[in-house]
Amino acid sequence: MDYETPLFFHVMEYADAADRDVVDMVSGNPDWEPPEALRDGLREYADFDPDRFQYPASEGLSELREEIAARRGVDAAQIVVTNGAGEANYLAMARALERDAGDEILLTDPVYSYYPGKTTMLGGTQRYVAAGAEGQLDPAAVRAAASDETAAIVVNTPNNPTGAVYPAETMRELVAVAEDHDAVLISDEVYDHYDLSGQFASALETESTHRIVTNAVSKSMAVTGLRVGYVIFPPELVADAKSRHMLVNVATTRPGQYAALKAFRETGPDYYERNRELLRERVDTFTDALEAAGAEYTTPQGSFYVMARFDGYPGTLANVERLIDEAGVAGMPGEAFGDSRSEWLRFALVTPRVEEAARRLAAYFD
Amino acid sequence: MDYETPLFFHVMEYADAADRDVVDMVSGNPDWEPPEALRDGLREYADFDPDRFQYPASEGLSELREEIAARRGVDAAQIVVTNGAGEANYLAMARALERDAGDEILLTDPVYSYYPGKTTMLGGTQRYVAAGAEGQLDPAAVRAAASDETAAIVVNTPNNPTGAVYPAETMRELVAVAEDHDAVLISDEVYDHYDLSGQFASALETESTHRIVTNAVSKSMAVTGLRVGYVIFPPELVADAKSRHMLVNVATTRPGQYAALKAFRETGPDYYERNRELLRERVDTFTDALEAAGAEYTTPQGSFYVMARFDGYPGTLANVERLIDEAGVAGMPGEAFGDSRSEWLRFALVTPRVEEAARRLAAYFD
Repeated sequence: MDYETPLFFHVMEYADAADRDVVDMVSGNPDWEPPEALRDGLREYADFDPDRFQYPASEGLSELREEIAARRGVDAAQIVVTNGAGEANYLAMARALERDAGDEILLTDPVYSYYPGKTTMLGGTQRYVAAGAEGQLDPAAVRAAASDETAAIVVNTPNNPTGAVYPAETMRELVAVAEDHDAVLISDEVYDHYDLSGQFASALETESTHRIVTNAVSKSMAVTGLRVGYVIFPPELVADAKSRHMLVNVATTRPGQYAALKAFRETGPDYYERNRELLRERVDTFTDALEAAGAEYTTPQGSFYVMARFDGYPGTLANVERLIDEAGVAGMPGEAFGDSRSEWLRFALVTPRVEEAARRLAAYFD
Repeated sequence: MDYETPLFFHVMEYADAADRDVVDMVSGNPDWEPPEALRDGLREYADFDPDRFQYPASEGLSELREEIAARRGVDAAQIVVTNGAGEANYLAMARALERDAGDEILLTDPVYSYYPGKTTMLGGTQRYVAAGAEGQLDPAAVRAAASDETAAIVVNTPNNPTGAVYPAETMRELVAVAEDHDAVLISDEVYDHYDLSGQFASALETESTHRIVTNAVSKSMAVTGLRVGYVIFPPELVADAKSRHMLVNVATTRPGQYAALKAFRETGPDYYERNRELLRERVDTFTDALEAAGAEYTTPQGSFYVMARFDGYPGTLANVERLIDEAGVAGMPGEAFGDSRSEWLRFALVTPRVEEAARRLAAYFD
């Protein structure tokens, strides 16, 4: 089986092995601090009794599921705590395909690179709907692409890589399209705390038995390596997803669940606002420098990413590697996110050196 | 899709909800201490820089893979660090089925309850080979059941639930059967540190491109909730398994991997010997009491389990629940492990109260 393995790890390894200083803007790994309460959670765990080191409930620690349920306004029974958003999206897509209501997964172009690979692995087929130049998704285009073959529509808001945040009207309409074709809208909202526009609308705002929401603490708490995420299913769809979770992973790491729970309980809104403010500053700094360099670029409404385009320098893997070696800046090739952005490069704003990166890019393309 | 969800969690919940004191012998959750170095690992992690909280390499921390490789005499490139043995077995079975060399998975009867469910989830079919009365597996019976349809043979040694430890000759012959039918022997060796017989032989001892070994620190370090395991593939089979791991889970929890690494490095053989000695004492205590009560029972060569049979009291879920309510002892129904042990109950020796449990059982069946 030939999965489309995402290129992230390849590019990161290439950048690590480079024989020069490289500003790493490859992957969505925050460089800011996790909540102090999350650190406290790990610290406390070290002294717990042996029974706390054993299997938690497969679907997740009940206190954590209740905490998430209260925050999201759903029933705890709808929640499965997963090994990050990666497993959450896997469970959601598998569940959508298992309903015997079509084999097609509607994805956006550009697309987050893991979704196409998951689709193939799960025996589905991809169909792409082009996003607009600013990354917005036209629900009418999604409706035109949907059919009886549609099992799921997978979207990501705030979006990686475009930075688009879909308004409430788009989310409502996407749910309606899913309902009309016996499909499921899967809304990956892992960047919800990095909405810089104030426009973010969760799919949860639209009551429906045809939408699944995935999320994680990976981005919101700056701990992509902790591997604690969750998925919220309609009550009708949750049972089989719990079985799959049990059969694949048994359970999600318990110290990580506890640390996330403690961080949920003890972290105030100022933590999240501080990180948004940091991102806003970096967006300004980086895009100002790109502007000065005469590049085309996107200004994200949310998430961590700026896409940029330099004349005569398409977003291929070879060009990304050349940029690492010759300019000392590592981004991701636009072609990793679908055909529509093959001329572009994606830069993650997860380094304090965004100004230096922009300066290097400007000098290189001068 | 109707997965055969294991009954463990149901029985544990039933026992927890019981209106009386219950000796919990349901699940294989050790009640002994994890290595102190593992606790130290979590403690240290709490103070690490933010970058240590981000994605590790998808296939696992390289230091951990190298540590495992050195211990097991394989190349680190063959190893994927997984979310416990649960994911390790899932990856191994998926990889065996993906080769387009048959859809059948040969399992033993009795069987560890997760294997049949994983088989169904992955689109395979189960074929069972009966183990002997003592739990030993006759390779000739496996050979007789194998065919061109055989994708994999899945075994567990030391065995859950029988306690059998397969000798080196059995392991060699099982690999040979796999080779002769273009199948893969998947050897789940998660209880390897609980070999009480001195007879344990890893499938790794037999060089072959047709065997996969799965393992975890869950049992050996008494941390089933940490979720750190690994799978060792032949070099020819590892690439697609790494892709699947990436597409399902992205990576395994990084603080957990670090804690396991530290515990591997700093834990001496005395830790493991102490736990074996504790188990030996419990086996003696529990089986002596069963003997006195006139029950039939198994004496494990390894793993945590004793199977017992009481006249006129078959190992159904209903009878297990009755035993919880009326005798205050919680075990697992033998029928959860396949047809051949439907008259039996399984008791996990993971409580200091094994003597009390045996006394209660003797009184109840008197």
